[in-house]
Amino acid sequence: MYQLIAELYPICRSITGPGVRETLRRVQARAPIAIREVPTGTPVLDWTVPKEWTVRDAYIKDARGERVVDFRQSNLHVVSYSVPVRTRMSLGKLREHLFTIPERPDWIPYRTSYYQENWGFCLAHRRLLELGDDEYEVVIDASLEDGHLTFGELLIEGAQPEEVLISTHVCHPSLCNDNLSGIALATFLARALAARRLRYSYRFLFIPGTIGSITWLALNEERVSRIKHGLVLACVGDPGPLTYKRSRRHSAEIDRAALAVLGHSGREFTVLDFTPYGYDERQYGSPGFNLPVGCLSRTPHGSFPEYHTSADDLEFVRPAALADSLATVSEIVELLESNKIWVNQNPKGEPQLGRRGLYTQWGGRPDRARRELAMLWVLNLSDGSHSLLDIAERSGLEFGLIKDAADALAGQGLLR
Amino acid sequence: MYQLIAELYPICRSITGPGVRETLRRVQARAPIAIREVPTGTPVLDWTVPKEWTVRDAYIKDARGERVVDFRQSNLHVVSYSVPVRTRMSLGKLREHLFTIPERPDWIPYRTSYYQENWGFCLAHRRLLELGDDEYEVVIDASLEDGHLTFGELLIEGAQPEEVLISTHVCHPSLCNDNLSGIALATFLARALAARRLRYSYRFLFIPGTIGSITWLALNEERVSRIKHGLVLACVGDPGPLTYKRSRRHSAEIDRAALAVLGHSGREFTVLDFTPYGYDERQYGSPGFNLPVGCLSRTPHGSFPEYHTSADDLEFVRPAALADSLATVSEIVELLESNKIWVNQNPKGEPQLGRRGLYTQWGGRPDRARRELAMLWVLNLSDGSHSLLDIAERSGLEFGLIKDAADALAGQGLLR
Amino acid sequence: MYQLIAELYPICRSITGPGVRETLRRVQARAPIAIREVPTGTPVLDWTVPKEWTVRDAYIKDARGERVVDFRQSNLHVVSYSVPVRTRMSLGKLREHLFTIPERPDWIPYRTSYYQENWGFCLAHRRLLELGDDEYEVVIDASLEDGHLTFGELLIEGAQPEEVLISTHVCHPSLCNDNLSGIALATFLARALAARRLRYSYRFLFIPGTIGSITWLALNEERVSRIKHGLVLACVGDPGPLTYKRSRRHSAEIDRAALAVLGHSGREFTVLDFTPYGYDERQYGSPGFNLPVGCLSRTPHGSFPEYHTSADDLEFVRPAALADSLATVSEIVELLESNKIWVNQNPKGEPQLGRRGLYTQWGGRPDRARRELAMLWVLNLSDGSHSLLDIAERSGLEFGLIKDAADALAGQGLLR
Repeated sequence: MYQLIAELYPICRSITGPGVRETLRRVQARAPIAIREVPTGTPVLDWTVPKEWTVRDAYIKDARGERVVDFRQSNLHVVSYSVPVRTRMSLGKLREHLFTIPERPDWIPYRTSYYQENWGFCLAHRRLLELGDDEYEVVIDASLEDGHLTFGELLIEGAQPEEVLISTHVCHPSLCNDNLSGIALATFLARALAARRLRYSYRFLFIPGTIGSITWLALNEERVSRIKHGLVLACVGDPGPLTYKRSRRHSAEIDRAALAVLGHSGREFTVLDFTPYGYDERQYGSPGFNLPVGCLSRTPHGSFPEYHTSADDLEFVRPAALADSLATVSEIVELLESNKIWVNQNPKGEPQLGRRGLYTQWGGRPDRARRELAMLWVLNLSDGSHSLLDIAERSGLEFGLIKDAADALAGQGLLR
Repeated sequence: MYQLIAELYPICRSITGPGVRETLRRVQARAPIAIREVPTGTPVLDWTVPKEWTVRDAYIKDARGERVVDFRQSNLHVVSYSVPVRTRMSLGKLREHLFTIPERPDWIPYRTSYYQENWGFCLAHRRLLELGDDEYEVVIDASLEDGHLTFGELLIEGAQPEEVLISTHVCHPSLCNDNLSGIALATFLARALAARRLRYSYRFLFIPGTIGSITWLALNEERVSRIKHGLVLACVGDPGPLTYKRSRRHSAEIDRAALAVLGHSGREFTVLDFTPYGYDERQYGSPGFNLPVGCLSRTPHGSFPEYHTSADDLEFVRPAALADSLATVSEIVELLESNKIWVNQNPKGEPQLGRRGLYTQWGGRPDRARRELAMLWVLNLSDGSHSLLDIAERSGLEFGLIKDAADALAGQGLLR
Repeated sequence: MYQLIAELYPICRSITGPGVRETLRRVQARAPIAIREVPTGTPVLDWTVPKEWTVRDAYIKDARGERVVDFRQSNLHVVSYSVPVRTRMSLGKLREHLFTIPERPDWIPYRTSYYQENWGFCLAHRRLLELGDDEYEVVIDASLEDGHLTFGELLIEGAQPEEVLISTHVCHPSLCNDNLSGIALATFLARALAARRLRYSYRFLFIPGTIGSITWLALNEERVSRIKHGLVLACVGDPGPLTYKRSRRHSAEIDRAALAVLGHSGREFTVLDFTPYGYDERQYGSPGFNLPVGCLSRTPHGSFPEYHTSADDLEFVRPAALADSLATVSEIVELLESNKIWVNQNPKGEPQLGRRGLYTQWGGRPDRARRELAMLWVLNLSDGSHSLLDIAERSGLEFGLIKDAADALAGQGLLR
């Protein structure tokens, strides 16, 4: 995952344009996603697919002809979606188009100007202070033209048509945690799931934020009802503890699955209630869709100082954090895959486990007592109205223990 | 309000009689209430309208002919509803009819003898200790005769026949917080509401405690079902923090409205669960009516030492406290008036707020981010099953912000 | 109760055999239980009634012919349900059949080998260390033969066919808290209830653990639905505070009754959620029966070091603890007996209690205010959907006060 992030880092992405296309091509080299193109002007729900933005170069040159701000050094320098500019102006006039972070004088902020035509440059505050009261040459060699919105999609078919949605945004330029980390996690999760037998079908979306999910929802309205569970992945590579933001439904199966996994992880984590602010869970959770889609992050957006700055770089994301995030999502998937309602075939009194060898089965294991208890819980609650996750929650035992117990009991015909 | 309290303070009120009538006349000078008279003997639910009590003078004279206890100095001196007395007796016999508060030797207690014929005097304990072992002349120049129970009523008609009930008791003599404060608040609230357009109709009752609400309920059984929300106002003038006592329904809209207002007031407050002890919410909340009527007080009855003593005087109530109580009730009314269920007309995905100018609308305001968030919450939850109060509760934002957001969105046709 | 425990202490009980039979005969001398015999081999739910076990003698003799372990000294020395043995073996081989508690070198553990044929001895660890590297004569003079499973049963018929189940296990040998305490409590509770008029019918079961409840359930499947409330009694004689373990239904009437009694006891207590591990509540609470049966103990099984050792002896149980446990169960029974739904006959407004003498009724009592409040609560909530226990819970008042208030109001025709 880290290697993919390093490979994608230099590319200048935006909500449309060649950067997204190139990013998806590199994802495609790892996981068999399809690359979809939707023409500019296509009406999508309340929105319209915007023009395609291409930036080739951008700079501010001082009187001596030196590039004092240079897109070639960092693509964060140009405000994303800036209209083309080629002019000369005084520092006074130029300042209205310059953005810095005075409290972090060495960091370049990340700014966009979607859905309103404008232009600008972002730069380190320290650099701004060095600029003399000069006249400057200002060039943004960009085009905003009819083209396409590009996104990546992969459906891995499982035994059932019901889908689990994994959605991640691909519209940010050289920012690693936000959201090359999500792209990398989704890519390798897709690769792993494509190689195995699955109960659910899994739909992966690599989309520009907001307009991407709106476009997908608009084009797939009739498919939306198949989505039974979903996760938005964003900012999953920083060293902070994991954060799960609940879906709009608050206690949907995906919410309870995520909490069950985090709750038994032995590590610190945070749970946030749904709010209609954040990533694409806002769109999936709009009242007309109301999909059970939560969001997994490490430190949530806006809560780390590096957020939306040049400090969200290759040092800010860590291989170990990425691995932990992937392991957590994999465990959540595992839980969804095996969360079934079993029915005790011997519901009156306890069945005699001893004569079926079910007590000796765990003989050598240090957690034998908990494994026996897990069997008793599964038998006691498998009355047709409790799923294995219900049983795990009620008993306080890990889902894995409950699942193993159910498998052992089912193996003896005690559950169906 | 304070001025009205000062004007009403000297009047000797009881559950019936000229004091209540005079009090209501002075209220009438500020708000257009009707004064109703119900004859003695009228059966009202399980009760009967009692006789009318008139007291002209009352005193205890010592052997030297000096009034050692004198109704003309304080109407608390005579036990309310005392039967007429004109006799002479030793201190020993008289003592059975004397009431004091030994722990507060300078305060006169307030006592009543409703529904059982008796008589008595209340006095400062220090005065009692001064009484010599004398023979005393004891006079209560009062009459208990067939007459009327008097109460005040005002219906302010709004657009809907559904009513909000505001009820306050008028039966206490010279006690300011309990309940000239409630009378004053109700009077000025009525005056304010009478001057504006309203969604709900508002019914104000100025009634003697218990027998008054029982009488009104008995005479208006067929109207009772129109009452959708209600508040009893009592003890709203002392300097303590506000207290809201829930209705019997515990989480009726009036309860949630009061809590929403208090919860965002930034000031300390107390919430009490319903109990069948207290003011007229006992009657409104009896199981045969079960009306959603809460009670707003500052320090609750019985919890301040001045309660039911001569120390509940003009110094104990404060203009600022009265103003704060009125402002709070007005905010609760405002919330009820605007607590509607809007329906998002663009429920699939978020509508594009930017092109409708809804993001820039709050541009200059310091709470811009919270106002934008309020719009997202209103859009997200306006699915036909959430009122604005539901949205305020769920989002944790003030009701006012939510309402402003709904108004702005409705102005753009995004809500209906 | 303590005397009965002392009498039963020396008897060697097991899940079947003469010890249980003898124990039940001595219970029968105090309470009119029937002794039931179910033949070996009878299929009972998923189980089969096992053989009857009789032990006459058991010992380990050293080379000098001295009994180094002797059943006649403590019946805990032989593993319960051991198959007959008569052999000689070295200490090395014998050790596989010896059980001790190294951390408690003077205590003999209690071990069983039900449902798998085996044999063994339990002894103090200190004694084990004294055994030389000798050859030993090993004798268990026991028989495992077709016979019967024996249990005790008593149905005390009340006015209604609905039953309260009191179940206690009788299968442990010389252990006092576990469970001679439960046997003694159930015996004396049965004796007390047999002597009075009752609303519910009460069924007492004195049964071997697990197989006993399974046998009773199997033989009485059509009667099971009559059981409306139930308690398993176990470990009720130690000096620790009381512990109530909820039924599988979590908030059944028995659970709420037990909590109401414990909550107002003024003493420390513990409430545990249901788990499918423990005593016979596991069987009563299996999903095919799902009976509302909780479990009352003092220190719960497994939580006191004396548990399942020779230290659970006549010193470990205390008359005062037994008395407190019996008083608590009696109070729970009392609550169930009088927990009815009354209906306020005067539901509109409060009835006038004064003219019915209901205020003066509690005149002399120090808790007069609470008794008056209890009347108001009963009137307010007796709307046909609240039982007296509901009212006690909601008001926070003791059930006894609520019941007295209801009786007083019913006496005046205000409730039916």
